[in-house]
Amino acid sequence: MSDLKTAALEYHAQPRPGKLSVELTKPTSTARDLSLAYSPGVAEPVREIARDAELAYQYTGKGNLVAVISDGTAILGLGNLGPLASKPVMEGKGVLFKRFAGIDVFDIEVDAESPQAFIDTVKRISITFGGINLEDIKAPECFEIERALIEQCNIPVFHDDQHGTAIVTAAGMLNALEIAGKTLEDAKIVCLGAGAAAISCMKLLVSMGAKVENIYMLDRQGVIHSGRTDLNQYKAVFATETSKRTLAEALEGADVFVGLSGADLLSADDLKRMAPNPIVFACSNPDPEIKPELAHQTRSDVIMATGRSDYPNQVNNVLGFPFIFRGALDIRATVINEEMKIAAAYALRDLAKLPVPQEVCQAYGVDELSFGRGYIIPKPMDPRLITIVSDAVAKAAIETGVATRPYPAHYPLKSISDVFSH
Amino acid sequence: MSDLKTAALEYHAQPRPGKLSVELTKPTSTARDLSLAYSPGVAEPVREIARDAELAYQYTGKGNLVAVISDGTAILGLGNLGPLASKPVMEGKGVLFKRFAGIDVFDIEVDAESPQAFIDTVKRISITFGGINLEDIKAPECFEIERALIEQCNIPVFHDDQHGTAIVTAAGMLNALEIAGKTLEDAKIVCLGAGAAAISCMKLLVSMGAKVENIYMLDRQGVIHSGRTDLNQYKAVFATETSKRTLAEALEGADVFVGLSGADLLSADDLKRMAPNPIVFACSNPDPEIKPELAHQTRSDVIMATGRSDYPNQVNNVLGFPFIFRGALDIRATVINEEMKIAAAYALRDLAKLPVPQEVCQAYGVDELSFGRGYIIPKPMDPRLITIVSDAVAKAAIETGVATRPYPAHYPLKSISDVFSH
Repeated sequence: MSDLKTAALEYHAQPRPGKLSVELTKPTSTARDLSLAYSPGVAEPVREIARDAELAYQYTGKGNLVAVISDGTAILGLGNLGPLASKPVMEGKGVLFKRFAGIDVFDIEVDAESPQAFIDTVKRISITFGGINLEDIKAPECFEIERALIEQCNIPVFHDDQHGTAIVTAAGMLNALEIAGKTLEDAKIVCLGAGAAAISCMKLLVSMGAKVENIYMLDRQGVIHSGRTDLNQYKAVFATETSKRTLAEALEGADVFVGLSGADLLSADDLKRMAPNPIVFACSNPDPEIKPELAHQTRSDVIMATGRSDYPNQVNNVLGFPFIFRGALDIRATVINEEMKIAAAYALRDLAKLPVPQEVCQAYGVDELSFGRGYIIPKPMDPRLITIVSDAVAKAAIETGVATRPYPAHYPLKSISDVFSH
Repeated sequence: MSDLKTAALEYHAQPRPGKLSVELTKPTSTARDLSLAYSPGVAEPVREIARDAELAYQYTGKGNLVAVISDGTAILGLGNLGPLASKPVMEGKGVLFKRFAGIDVFDIEVDAESPQAFIDTVKRISITFGGINLEDIKAPECFEIERALIEQCNIPVFHDDQHGTAIVTAAGMLNALEIAGKTLEDAKIVCLGAGAAAISCMKLLVSMGAKVENIYMLDRQGVIHSGRTDLNQYKAVFATETSKRTLAEALEGADVFVGLSGADLLSADDLKRMAPNPIVFACSNPDPEIKPELAHQTRSDVIMATGRSDYPNQVNNVLGFPFIFRGALDIRATVINEEMKIAAAYALRDLAKLPVPQEVCQAYGVDELSFGRGYIIPKPMDPRLITIVSDAVAKAAIETGVATRPYPAHYPLKSISDVFSH
């Protein structure tokens, strides 16, 4: 076994299985304590909530509780391995939600015979939670599932594989374009991959200023163009009038390459076809579309990001979802809308431009991190994420009228400890 | 507001809403830690579980995780207040599971349009858990719901309102009968109430030796007899050939009264009709069928239990469910069968006969607790419950062939701390 495999299995198994536990937050040592926690005292909050549903946020854990839910149809890059096999990933997501934003997570694995059965199931249990994070659900079913659940639930529903990746990609992209002296409005973009993350990424870039007609998206059949008859409604949005058919053709003069293809598909020759200061986000894991070493060797002017933690500029969803939900929960947003996603992207873009505290550099074993080609995306261990991103998301929710309570008195948060003291 | 109301609402609201949190059990301080907890390391347990589903018990929290699930149709004695209002109770159940048996609980409130929708929903999410505790679901729907879920899930499913009450009642009943010089086989039993708990109580007593023909069960229409045409299949089991119609008639010469009616319905005159050394389990809350003061004043030979913590001999479900699930999870039982329930009842019966440690007396502010009319049921704070009850349940599961792993090396448990060290 590889070192990573051994270490990962041991981490999950020892000293006890799993990574999370449920713990008591109130005293339970005396008979009196128990009479408040359970019968007869518990009848009081029951009556209050029956009278006014809003009081569930006052007397139960609902307001800080997010469900991380999967059907296991698209686990990491591993494919459809079924809901039970997704459990370590969903629990891992719970670890990140708690570690970075103080949010309690119940992971729920759903063995659903159809997308409709999945929707029905999640909808029926949704009142338990303050928000729902969908995870590792395959495209195109994930689009309809998310749409239906957003419509049917009155709490935020967010499919992180779509929007998390999109938000962090957009943040890094804006910084890369600035460094390259280009703009989103004019950028010629090639997106290799047409799954959930790819489609959501391109949609977010468009809503932030990119032009659909400047985007070439490619699936396994090549360029998605208006002459194709095999496109689902989600891909069809990106069908352009073009004679280009191959990746090489699409890349001719392109400013940006976004790889969400799942494989090592960008060659040195492909990279050479791109415009000056090419931006390459090779996000597939574990094998990026092109290795950073090869990319830099091929072109000294490339600006690169990957999905890997062992290279600079990692597109890592953990920069988004914990803080987006923190902001959404704290002003009790009814949805996570486009404006909140864009606000998160701008906040991440801005954070990368600020001087980086020494503690963050130390956490990553580097002397310095400063804005430039090697640092266009913040690092997950940056304690300012919760301050800046959650605040931006909460403000955007308030401005767009989807917040149901006012800007919190203790905002902007100073750090994660602020979460636990309120 | 009453003192209890004020204290209970404050307990639930301050300093943070609710009573539980989800906490990290593995290190997460370094980038390396996170690479094991989540991507890329988490792919290893995913692959292992995809290969062998059993390994979910090794690499995730499944094996120590119970879902406490309600549709809110019969919350405490308050009725059908809807699923959201049941959340404080379900979270309270989670508190008790953790406090007494170290079991992690996700409370799930289900907004289901029908019993079938509830069944489908619970079944689809059941792979998340190691066991399912159904709670506060109204009769008669609860019987079919439990039956269907036991059949469709390969983990233990247990409706505590039925079986928890039944098991603790049975334990106390055996001791009361012994003190009264009577036997379950010969006892004439009157059961006031024909809901989930009542029916389950009588079924368990029958499977332990009581005779159906010696039982009179009463619902709102009076004695359930063979001439009635308004009985559902669950009540019909207890229809006897008799001319008795009223409670007073049924009580004539009865040895045992079990009250699960929800109200103060047993009069002093009723009590006078019973046989010598009458056994009265007046379990309704907050108002028992007869107040202990009145009962003792009416007959000096009465042996009484109630559902209240402020009188001796409390029939309290917390004596059962935490330890029953502990035993069932530890030998990974596929069901909680009748033999396991009976084993739990016998273990509770036996525990009440053992000398009580001074610490338990202190916890209840009494000088002494010793087997007799005033102490026929153990106390919830007795640390020997987990040792004795969980062990009995695990052994019964092994003997009846429903355990899927061997008797644990660390059994019988010495105390709750044994749970956390294994």
